[in-house]
Amino acid sequence: MHVLEARQFERAWLQGTLFPLADRMAGLAEFGAHRLLEGRRLFWLFFEPSTRTRVSFESAIALLGGTATGIQVDPGAELVPERLEDRVQVINGYGYDFLLLRYHEEGGAARAAAVSRAPVINAGDGAGEHPTQALLDAYTIWKELGRLEGLRVALVGDLTYERSTTSLARLLAHCGVAGIDFVSPALLPVRAEIKHELADAGVAFRELRDVRQVAADVDVLYLTRAHTERLRYAQRSEREAGHYAVDAHVMQLLRPSAIVMHPLPRGPELPPELDADPRVACFRQARNGLHVRMALLLLLADASPLPASR
Amino acid sequence: MHVLEARQFERAWLQGTLFPLADRMAGLAEFGAHRLLEGRRLFWLFFEPSTRTRVSFESAIALLGGTATGIQVDPGAELVPERLEDRVQVINGYGYDFLLLRYHEEGGAARAAAVSRAPVINAGDGAGEHPTQALLDAYTIWKELGRLEGLRVALVGDLTYERSTTSLARLLAHCGVAGIDFVSPALLPVRAEIKHELADAGVAFRELRDVRQVAADVDVLYLTRAHTERLRYAQRSEREAGHYAVDAHVMQLLRPSAIVMHPLPRGPELPPELDADPRVACFRQARNGLHVRMALLLLLADASPLPASR
Amino acid sequence: MHVLEARQFERAWLQGTLFPLADRMAGLAEFGAHRLLEGRRLFWLFFEPSTRTRVSFESAIALLGGTATGIQVDPGAELVPERLEDRVQVINGYGYDFLLLRYHEEGGAARAAAVSRAPVINAGDGAGEHPTQALLDAYTIWKELGRLEGLRVALVGDLTYERSTTSLARLLAHCGVAGIDFVSPALLPVRAEIKHELADAGVAFRELRDVRQVAADVDVLYLTRAHTERLRYAQRSEREAGHYAVDAHVMQLLRPSAIVMHPLPRGPELPPELDADPRVACFRQARNGLHVRMALLLLLADASPLPASR
Repeated sequence: MHVLEARQFERAWLQGTLFPLADRMAGLAEFGAHRLLEGRRLFWLFFEPSTRTRVSFESAIALLGGTATGIQVDPGAELVPERLEDRVQVINGYGYDFLLLRYHEEGGAARAAAVSRAPVINAGDGAGEHPTQALLDAYTIWKELGRLEGLRVALVGDLTYERSTTSLARLLAHCGVAGIDFVSPALLPVRAEIKHELADAGVAFRELRDVRQVAADVDVLYLTRAHTERLRYAQRSEREAGHYAVDAHVMQLLRPSAIVMHPLPRGPELPPELDADPRVACFRQARNGLHVRMALLLLLADASPLPASR
Repeated sequence: MHVLEARQFERAWLQGTLFPLADRMAGLAEFGAHRLLEGRRLFWLFFEPSTRTRVSFESAIALLGGTATGIQVDPGAELVPERLEDRVQVINGYGYDFLLLRYHEEGGAARAAAVSRAPVINAGDGAGEHPTQALLDAYTIWKELGRLEGLRVALVGDLTYERSTTSLARLLAHCGVAGIDFVSPALLPVRAEIKHELADAGVAFRELRDVRQVAADVDVLYLTRAHTERLRYAQRSEREAGHYAVDAHVMQLLRPSAIVMHPLPRGPELPPELDADPRVACFRQARNGLHVRMALLLLLADASPLPASR
Repeated sequence: MHVLEARQFERAWLQGTLFPLADRMAGLAEFGAHRLLEGRRLFWLFFEPSTRTRVSFESAIALLGGTATGIQVDPGAELVPERLEDRVQVINGYGYDFLLLRYHEEGGAARAAAVSRAPVINAGDGAGEHPTQALLDAYTIWKELGRLEGLRVALVGDLTYERSTTSLARLLAHCGVAGIDFVSPALLPVRAEIKHELADAGVAFRELRDVRQVAADVDVLYLTRAHTERLRYAQRSEREAGHYAVDAHVMQLLRPSAIVMHPLPRGPELPPELDADPRVACFRQARNGLHVRMALLLLLADASPLPASR
């Protein structure tokens, strides 16, 4: 079994299997190292820089008694680049139990899974997916608000190239949310295929350009980095500037029960001065990532009830 | 004891000690982690980039219950470069049990061994040697073909600067092979000292420029990367292009019992379309590397019957 | 508790707690891995390159049964750099037991400690401090010479920007030494605040420009790299060249009971030809670093008698 895309996962499995196991992992982690995955070894193979995802998985396997190692590849540096499939076969030959892959092009995880005996975990494939981020985000919403059904979620930022929001929208499509507001510059809209998936699943959505238009209505305000080169360029071309950040005013608009999420690292779109507001959940979200990833590793190790990629 | 050069190792030790132990390691590795080297620590000190050799040794020690860490040095980056001998003494002071060294100049491993209490394993020294690659290559031949004696082996590619073929030729010189065919551009011939060693040992050899001239006769066709800058340059100066790759035609010439080896990473000289042919042994060869390195670490830890460098 | 600056530590604690524990660690280390910190995990977060300090701490925790991982940050590489405080909070969320921080600006360790539940260990903050280097240096003096009280110590090199000497001078200010000789170019003098601290503590000091003026008088000659760009520039502006290196002549001047220390890596200021002289203690000093860091980790893990930062 592999973890390749958000669409693999249904609400029943999330709420019946993954989330309760992640809750138990939160308890386990507090008491230090454990032996559930003693001797199991994770290999991370990264074609793009990353620290948070790697470190989160390293912590997850370490807390379960296993170990991690890996390599960072610069895909532009080789005269004759080594084939991804060759690398994956060699790593399998070395007997690793998990292969965590971040690839610079869409579809990398699926190519790896096609030749890998060890479970492949997609840690991001180009502008494609980042399914474990979506799982930890959904877990955070569920843990903070007690449910996924009937919620209104706003996804904010570069919705064309940001993997977190792409994967989360795909996952939420099957979770009974009441609706999704996509807040982005006109040049960086949510992808057409996501809109098709939402329409097929009967989930209402809107496309907007100002977070203040939705702040009073949503249960979850999900921000992403708003100061990338791409976003700056996209905003220059707009007649009226969009608004993809929170400030004290936006926090006032927001319901008392709502939460603000961010995959981190953040820029000025989520000022640290707001951290004291208990609705800002980004560090709890990061910590939840540890517990969700521990749960995923346990499930992959048993190869038990993990849903298949389509 | 240290692992410095292929000439250290005689056929009797290979077939009587190393290879049977590597066979047992293959069995061990399947059942996950073990405790034979629990608490033992390997330090890798690399002055050239490498991933395969490092990862292979990391896996080897992890599967035996030990741990690995290390540093990558860019020898050109320091105003006053630190002496290799200083580094080795500090690493010894930190109590490591094994020192895996890849150095950018010939003789690095011998310099390190001169000041190291911990066993030094030469993981490549410039255009010099790569003895553990030669050991895993010889083990692969022995495992695939049942013997080393009487075999015909072709080594193909840049035979002046490629460490794998240099070390393997040196090792096979003492293993009773029937003969070695060196297939390379005229500008990148096998080194003169290798030819002297083979002549001294009474091993016949030929120098050729087309793999098709030898394919029908050999038991082992050992390819190396054929698309480096150096090889391209060397081929431009030849009146008639050499041939240092396999394709469907070469595979037809090859005996049913022969094998094709490659230290990886490969370029177009070994097209992935041929991987389905069971004679292509390169991924089994990579996996054998794990088992040979596990065996070497065990032998070095006991400091028992490892032959001395000359 | 955190390890932030040399001024935290008093002589009584050094001689009564840290040094005896480091002695016991030296014994432990010889017998291989131990379980005192089994399952404990150290995270290193480095904003400047370093290998020695990282490797020394990695060895320390490994010898006590724990594990280490971390990341190297290039502070200039990000469009919107992630806040140090954000990084520290995420790392805490992942449950690490120790945070080893090297930062590129003074005050980084204190900022991290302000938001960290896990003990922060300052592994260098810009031109600020490197307190664990000072602790291992003081331990080396104590171990080699049997005491700190009444000793004369010369600190040599770039005394403005070299963290080792800054931290050691601060630590020795409270250890009853007889006096400190600062030997540096006029442009790179010991910092004014260090001189104030020494004056307040009643420790005599001198500022000189030639190591030969003090060699016959001191118990400890502490060298640092004398061939940095900064030192070369500083020396060009001096009418008469200073002298910040040892050679056979300086070794003759030195008392039989004196020692020569160096934090390594060294340049030509301490020629390897002198290593055979038993007074050259630099490799014993490096090894002592392992034992002092093992002792510090044990003390931090128990959160027992570690003195607080001021």
